[in-house]
Amino acid sequence: MMVKKTALLLPLVLLMLAFQPVKKKKVIFFGDSITQQGAGPGGYIMRIDSMSKAAHLADQFEFVGKGIGGNKVYDLFLRFQPDVLDQKPDIVLVYVGINDVWHKAMGTGTDFDKFGKFYDAIISTLKKQGIQPVVCTPSVIGEWNDGTNQQDGDLNLYAKWIREYAAKNGVPLVDLRKIFLDYLQQNNPENKDRGILTVDRVHLNEKGNQLVADAMWKVIRSLK
Amino acid sequence: MMVKKTALLLPLVLLMLAFQPVKKKKVIFFGDSITQQGAGPGGYIMRIDSMSKAAHLADQFEFVGKGIGGNKVYDLFLRFQPDVLDQKPDIVLVYVGINDVWHKAMGTGTDFDKFGKFYDAIISTLKKQGIQPVVCTPSVIGEWNDGTNQQDGDLNLYAKWIREYAAKNGVPLVDLRKIFLDYLQQNNPENKDRGILTVDRVHLNEKGNQLVADAMWKVIRSLK
Amino acid sequence: MMVKKTALLLPLVLLMLAFQPVKKKKVIFFGDSITQQGAGPGGYIMRIDSMSKAAHLADQFEFVGKGIGGNKVYDLFLRFQPDVLDQKPDIVLVYVGINDVWHKAMGTGTDFDKFGKFYDAIISTLKKQGIQPVVCTPSVIGEWNDGTNQQDGDLNLYAKWIREYAAKNGVPLVDLRKIFLDYLQQNNPENKDRGILTVDRVHLNEKGNQLVADAMWKVIRSLK
Amino acid sequence: MMVKKTALLLPLVLLMLAFQPVKKKKVIFFGDSITQQGAGPGGYIMRIDSMSKAAHLADQFEFVGKGIGGNKVYDLFLRFQPDVLDQKPDIVLVYVGINDVWHKAMGTGTDFDKFGKFYDAIISTLKKQGIQPVVCTPSVIGEWNDGTNQQDGDLNLYAKWIREYAAKNGVPLVDLRKIFLDYLQQNNPENKDRGILTVDRVHLNEKGNQLVADAMWKVIRSLK
Repeated sequence: MMVKKTALLLPLVLLMLAFQPVKKKKVIFFGDSITQQGAGPGGYIMRIDSMSKAAHLADQFEFVGKGIGGNKVYDLFLRFQPDVLDQKPDIVLVYVGINDVWHKAMGTGTDFDKFGKFYDAIISTLKKQGIQPVVCTPSVIGEWNDGTNQQDGDLNLYAKWIREYAAKNGVPLVDLRKIFLDYLQQNNPENKDRGILTVDRVHLNEKGNQLVADAMWKVIRSLK
Repeated sequence: MMVKKTALLLPLVLLMLAFQPVKKKKVIFFGDSITQQGAGPGGYIMRIDSMSKAAHLADQFEFVGKGIGGNKVYDLFLRFQPDVLDQKPDIVLVYVGINDVWHKAMGTGTDFDKFGKFYDAIISTLKKQGIQPVVCTPSVIGEWNDGTNQQDGDLNLYAKWIREYAAKNGVPLVDLRKIFLDYLQQNNPENKDRGILTVDRVHLNEKGNQLVADAMWKVIRSLK
Repeated sequence: MMVKKTALLLPLVLLMLAFQPVKKKKVIFFGDSITQQGAGPGGYIMRIDSMSKAAHLADQFEFVGKGIGGNKVYDLFLRFQPDVLDQKPDIVLVYVGINDVWHKAMGTGTDFDKFGKFYDAIISTLKKQGIQPVVCTPSVIGEWNDGTNQQDGDLNLYAKWIREYAAKNGVPLVDLRKIFLDYLQQNNPENKDRGILTVDRVHLNEKGNQLVADAMWKVIRSLK
Repeated sequence: MMVKKTALLLPLVLLMLAFQPVKKKKVIFFGDSITQQGAGPGGYIMRIDSMSKAAHLADQFEFVGKGIGGNKVYDLFLRFQPDVLDQKPDIVLVYVGINDVWHKAMGTGTDFDKFGKFYDAIISTLKKQGIQPVVCTPSVIGEWNDGTNQQDGDLNLYAKWIREYAAKNGVPLVDLRKIFLDYLQQNNPENKDRGILTVDRVHLNEKGNQLVADAMWKVIRSLK
């Protein structure tokens, strides 16, 4: 009796599906030394991992750090194929720009117009390959909260460009620079140049890592 | 009769006093290419001169431009003796700092701490010699009004230092940077990088020269 | 009679082969503004083209300029696929490095170690795809012949790296820097900083273009 | 009997003269961190002091170090009055220029033309005041011996200027750059970038301090 057999099979199939391992979304964090440290103990990637577990979403995400110290946007581009595309990620967060600005003070920063070209080359390729990009503005080089850090102007410019690029291209944005500046406005009454969100004006302390993790996780979990 | 004679002499003396040439106050403008241009046609020094005449104060002031293109604070220090002290001025306006910041982008700016040392060496010497100093904050390098000009952070820092130095040492201040930023906030709706107060992001156009002249003249005429 | 027929056909086939259009070798010149100008009138690529015609080799080569002003090695990498690989060249001459060094003076040069990475990425890919690379050392930034041009040290370093890379990887080398320095040693008795081989310390005058053309053509025509 | 008395006095006077304290020549070493370290144990000034004692000339010289880390030529100028002129020296050795070149890589070096102006201001003033100047060329930033240290070109330029200035103005010269380059040519077979004469590419090790001491002492003791 065919009908009966099918009737018996259906619940079984559903049961099997239910226990079938869910395909996790692979999330790659693509960046510089901040991201490299973010994959270590107390780092922002570890914190996002913990938050996903606390939210009972551990089975839905796999988090992979791909940060290398000193990287600028063109360094990301150089290792884009092996470190990102070949890894078959579902989501890629690009957190870059600090060294592009910072290293101008040592002679080897990135021209503003070139920054945009490489940035777009990365994001466009991700989109073409059906990978979800998420972009982040560069956080800070110095924590003075009255706009007097040497490279505040340039960081503002690069951050503004990323914001506009995200809006124009429909790419989710984690506006780290705005988040950091707002936080420092409220929480740096003595106007120190480090120690509130960073250990050395650039690299994140615990609070800095948590701030980044909160902002990124909010966007990651909202993605379909 | 002595009394009578005296009675006759008094009006004569008063008459003589009235026609006695007033000792003009010599005002030196000490600075870079902006000041060098300020002494030319349409320049801010020429405008101050016109304003003093319009206020019927032409006989009280002599205005002398001592600006040289490319000068940083230490260049002022190098030519301080011949160009300023030897000229026996009454008032000296020091308008410097733009090249100290700007030239960092070409490798030859001025360290922040050194800037302060040379600045103080100039102002302290003026005060010791009974010459009235007036200090000015550096105006702009780029007219974008959202804090994205490459060197906005550094200009803010040097301007802040000058403000605090002026307050601490009781030196009259012409806060050109604040005046320029406020003006651009109101009058640069398209957020252009030049053409509102400068011709090339740095050197002043007519409006820029007038703005500087207005602010300086207000302070100069108020000095006893 | 088969034999006779074949005997008749053979000379015909040879005749046809002789008139068959030769597959020209496509030679791409990949570089910066010097190469961009090299494709213009009097430029080194035009001169190589003339020399190939004078040598009755016009039918064997097609010369294509792919130079863009301001390009550093990573800019070449960014446009490598469309501008070089997609053009299916047989030979590619890479003439880059001047801006990588020069722009350090404006804050946006290329780190020495990164230079090597991008350089190798380009040359390795050419080799993998069966395209013949030819590398060139960067010529000059300033023509003083006593080692006092500001960036002589750095240019020497990058040139040395290219020489060693070429030797190690069996890549033909056009040692422009050595050729230029040797020429200036002999032909710059007044030790001028420009005007012997360049118009502005960097971009080539007629003699400079001819020197580059001679050196490149010698290598190009020697390639099998 | 007068004769007898005089006969008795003469040996006494001679005796007194012999024991009269010789007026020591005060030698100031005016410079940057290399000179600051030079005044410490094992430093070049200490070595010169030892050499003067070994030559039984200890009573003829007093050696005073006036070096401050990070100093460029304009820093020397700023502290010239209190640190040099007010000390009433007989001889002043000026050893400066490394930071003027080096700091270009961090944005705050010294323009070539300004270097000359400040240098001349110092040397001219010494001469006017009857103080004997001795000038030194800047030694090295990096010990590679094939002209590939990043700032070799610029150091060569500043050194060349000092050589020509010394010749033109009849100022004794200690050509440290030449001495160092010659030494490295002979004694750096592995072409290391540090460790032969410096500990860190700039600051002197024992051998470097001895080399400087030898060259300076030779000039100092030759001065009338």
